[in-house]
Amino acid sequence: MTRSERKPYSLREIKERLGGEISGDPGVTVSRVATLESAAPECIAFFANERYLPQLKATRAGAVILGESARDATRLPRIVSANPYAYFARVSALLNPPRPPRPGVHASAVVDGSATIAEDAEIGPCAVIGRDARIGAGCVIGAGCSIGDTAEIGAGTRLYPNVTIYHGCLIGERVILHSGVVIGADGFGIAMDEGRWLKVPQIGRVLIGNDVEIGANTTVDRGALDDTVIEEGVKLDNQIQIGHNVRIGAHTAIAACAGVAGSARIGRYCRIGGASGIAGHITIVDNVEISTYTLVTKSIKKPGTYTGAYVFEPHSEWRKNAVQLRHLSELAERVHVLEKKRAQPKRSKP
Amino acid sequence: MTRSERKPYSLREIKERLGGEISGDPGVTVSRVATLESAAPECIAFFANERYLPQLKATRAGAVILGESARDATRLPRIVSANPYAYFARVSALLNPPRPPRPGVHASAVVDGSATIAEDAEIGPCAVIGRDARIGAGCVIGAGCSIGDTAEIGAGTRLYPNVTIYHGCLIGERVILHSGVVIGADGFGIAMDEGRWLKVPQIGRVLIGNDVEIGANTTVDRGALDDTVIEEGVKLDNQIQIGHNVRIGAHTAIAACAGVAGSARIGRYCRIGGASGIAGHITIVDNVEISTYTLVTKSIKKPGTYTGAYVFEPHSEWRKNAVQLRHLSELAERVHVLEKKRAQPKRSKP
Amino acid sequence: MTRSERKPYSLREIKERLGGEISGDPGVTVSRVATLESAAPECIAFFANERYLPQLKATRAGAVILGESARDATRLPRIVSANPYAYFARVSALLNPPRPPRPGVHASAVVDGSATIAEDAEIGPCAVIGRDARIGAGCVIGAGCSIGDTAEIGAGTRLYPNVTIYHGCLIGERVILHSGVVIGADGFGIAMDEGRWLKVPQIGRVLIGNDVEIGANTTVDRGALDDTVIEEGVKLDNQIQIGHNVRIGAHTAIAACAGVAGSARIGRYCRIGGASGIAGHITIVDNVEISTYTLVTKSIKKPGTYTGAYVFEPHSEWRKNAVQLRHLSELAERVHVLEKKRAQPKRSKP
Repeated sequence: MTRSERKPYSLREIKERLGGEISGDPGVTVSRVATLESAAPECIAFFANERYLPQLKATRAGAVILGESARDATRLPRIVSANPYAYFARVSALLNPPRPPRPGVHASAVVDGSATIAEDAEIGPCAVIGRDARIGAGCVIGAGCSIGDTAEIGAGTRLYPNVTIYHGCLIGERVILHSGVVIGADGFGIAMDEGRWLKVPQIGRVLIGNDVEIGANTTVDRGALDDTVIEEGVKLDNQIQIGHNVRIGAHTAIAACAGVAGSARIGRYCRIGGASGIAGHITIVDNVEISTYTLVTKSIKKPGTYTGAYVFEPHSEWRKNAVQLRHLSELAERVHVLEKKRAQPKRSKP
Repeated sequence: MTRSERKPYSLREIKERLGGEISGDPGVTVSRVATLESAAPECIAFFANERYLPQLKATRAGAVILGESARDATRLPRIVSANPYAYFARVSALLNPPRPPRPGVHASAVVDGSATIAEDAEIGPCAVIGRDARIGAGCVIGAGCSIGDTAEIGAGTRLYPNVTIYHGCLIGERVILHSGVVIGADGFGIAMDEGRWLKVPQIGRVLIGNDVEIGANTTVDRGALDDTVIEEGVKLDNQIQIGHNVRIGAHTAIAACAGVAGSARIGRYCRIGGASGIAGHITIVDNVEISTYTLVTKSIKKPGTYTGAYVFEPHSEWRKNAVQLRHLSELAERVHVLEKKRAQPKRSKP
Repeated sequence: MTRSERKPYSLREIKERLGGEISGDPGVTVSRVATLESAAPECIAFFANERYLPQLKATRAGAVILGESARDATRLPRIVSANPYAYFARVSALLNPPRPPRPGVHASAVVDGSATIAEDAEIGPCAVIGRDARIGAGCVIGAGCSIGDTAEIGAGTRLYPNVTIYHGCLIGERVILHSGVVIGADGFGIAMDEGRWLKVPQIGRVLIGNDVEIGANTTVDRGALDDTVIEEGVKLDNQIQIGHNVRIGAHTAIAACAGVAGSARIGRYCRIGGASGIAGHITIVDNVEISTYTLVTKSIKKPGTYTGAYVFEPHSEWRKNAVQLRHLSELAERVHVLEKKRAQPKRSKP
């Protein structure tokens, strides 16, 4: 969705809205955000990491956002904030407001007569809204989205094109779902019976809290019996798979390509790395960080960072080392034998 | 697709349809399935794992399905079955029948004049059916699905919204394809020629057998020359990638996020864990189990379970240990040297 | 898209178009490509690997493409080429031309009045084209695709059904995007502020060069501030995730299920294996090969092959060995102690 025309703001106006402290000319206006490196004079940039000091010195930005400790690192007009990156996010949101909804149901959309659509919601071209579904105030339902029977979408939520919501799922307010997201497909429930897999009907729902964002092509399966729950403020990147009956605690963030197996429970404020895996039926407490590519096979009861990734190296080195993995237990045993022998004096010859 | 109104069944009626043996009052009726924990009196639950004995003792369920050995673990009305989980799956299917097709082609669907659509099939809103495509009896083609030219969909098959079938692919009967599934996209066939990749046309098809279920956003590539084949009864979870010319044997189940590279052949009744990888051009025999996160780089000729995942640990521990991986070959050599020295007496001083 | 009727070509006609050298009867005609194994007499096959010598001996193909060194390995009519696989790709493209566009906008497509559509472009059923978007000459936009406001699609580009392009993204010429691809969704930009994640607006674009092909359900995120760039000739397989502000150099090929984290820069002519991961903010030089399942956490400054995958083994063996990984640092230390003791003579009894 395209951004509307950019309106310039003076630092004074920005401070009035967002707080912080101005050093230098408060009348300087900015209309765009940019990196220090690519900023033009009408831009405001941010500086939050000492590594970028050379870029700060060289920037052509009209103004900069920075932290208390860096207050004097530049002479440019600047806003000092305790959390410069968050402040920058707010300024960017001010300068780049999302395109407002275009209220109304597009002529090509197919809305079941029993559905309830808020008057100021936008239903895009070729979107399909099922029986008894409800679309809240100010929602944007993108082109080609499919909203299943009895599903509900809370106020201010945006679905980009080609999102699919299965029947009965409940999406909170101010949620953002990117293209290709599938919410509420059947979980992987099968029972082997006399040589054939029987399907176990998946009759739970997916409940998604307020202020959740879900990236492109991520899938969240409906519960088998009870519901799958994504609590408020959770941020899921692209191409993540969430199995049935998972519960993800509020404000947890998960990077792309991760997978969470059925019935796992993840706490609040966790940070889960890309392509990591969480096994089924385990519990992870609040404030746990999982590194990229790490498979978590057991419950984690203590906050902290956990890792289990293989370190890469030139292929020829890897070949030599990796093969030893298959003899590691034996190697440990050999060291143990050497230690025992060492502890006992060699038998002296009689 | 929403479930129809729930009709209650007595245990006697259930037994008449599904077999098993009743203990307690056969006239008790149930209308819903539930877990032991969340069951209400109108619910039937199942007990298949001793770990849940406390939940069995405390359940408010109206009836329970359990195995022979647990026959006396409760006084609730119960059905005894040799395979309680499979029995439960059948009861759930009885109580939660899939919504029946709504025969007819939606006015917004686009069906090529040369396509053949069974009279009782349902073609949803904005679905697109190509030239000479065939849709079998009782099929449900969800909103926004695209069925390519000459593709065929067998009787009783369901496509949830936004599934894409490329031209020429053949889908069996009673297949379920979840939203975002892509069947028959080009395989990754490229040939380097004078500094540029040439595309190798992918002219095979995808053949999907009867009773296959494929999860949301899973992709199955068409064959390069011959076909990609998914045999009957195979169950694929979400976000799986199946490369060109792969063959997956009947009744094999693959968990989410796995990838199978081109021309691999997987046997029947295999169970492949989530996020695992099967290398190209290898063969895996029947009844092999691959663990989660395991990369299989060589053919497997013997049934059994195979694993290759890194174990996770607190990050600081991992740092210390993982770095040693790069010296593992050297470490093994050092142990070997120690062993040799130990075997030879130290040179005595002259 | 279905192939048009097959026209037979004589080897002489093929040579006139594609070069190479004929051995045997140049008047032999072929109308299909096939593997050596499944070829019928109207087929041309290729031989590029000595392993397939038995298949070459047994083939029923009418003609074969092979390398100089294999010139005399068969008596069949044959075309000798320095790069038989690339030659085969060209012959296959000749025999299997992609279905030509069917110019025109389908009646069910929704094209904004401000969009510019080339006269000979094909806009499929239920496709949606946004404000000020531009679709180039000879493009095919498949059913259900969504092209965002101000996006541009270069000449000769094909989008299979259900592709989504977000606003402002620029797609080059002769690009192929397979179903489920999402270009330009928001990158994963969030800032923690007082216990809640703030969204960092993602205002960059995605720029995709000429002759790029992107596989089914792959996602390429738009830049946070600057653009995400996929240079010309890049080939991406299915279900790959490309984070914001990544740059992928020309003619690099990436296999399925790989993930590239934000701001990573990958050089030209790299080959990245399936399910591998490239960490954010690192740089990989040209001509690097990354093995399947390898996580690259640091910049790579030298061409070569790099690997970091765990080797699989029977589960019981793995259990014994993998547990030792958690003691590897300790094991190395124990070996060190043994070496030191060995170096020092045992204290002799007084």
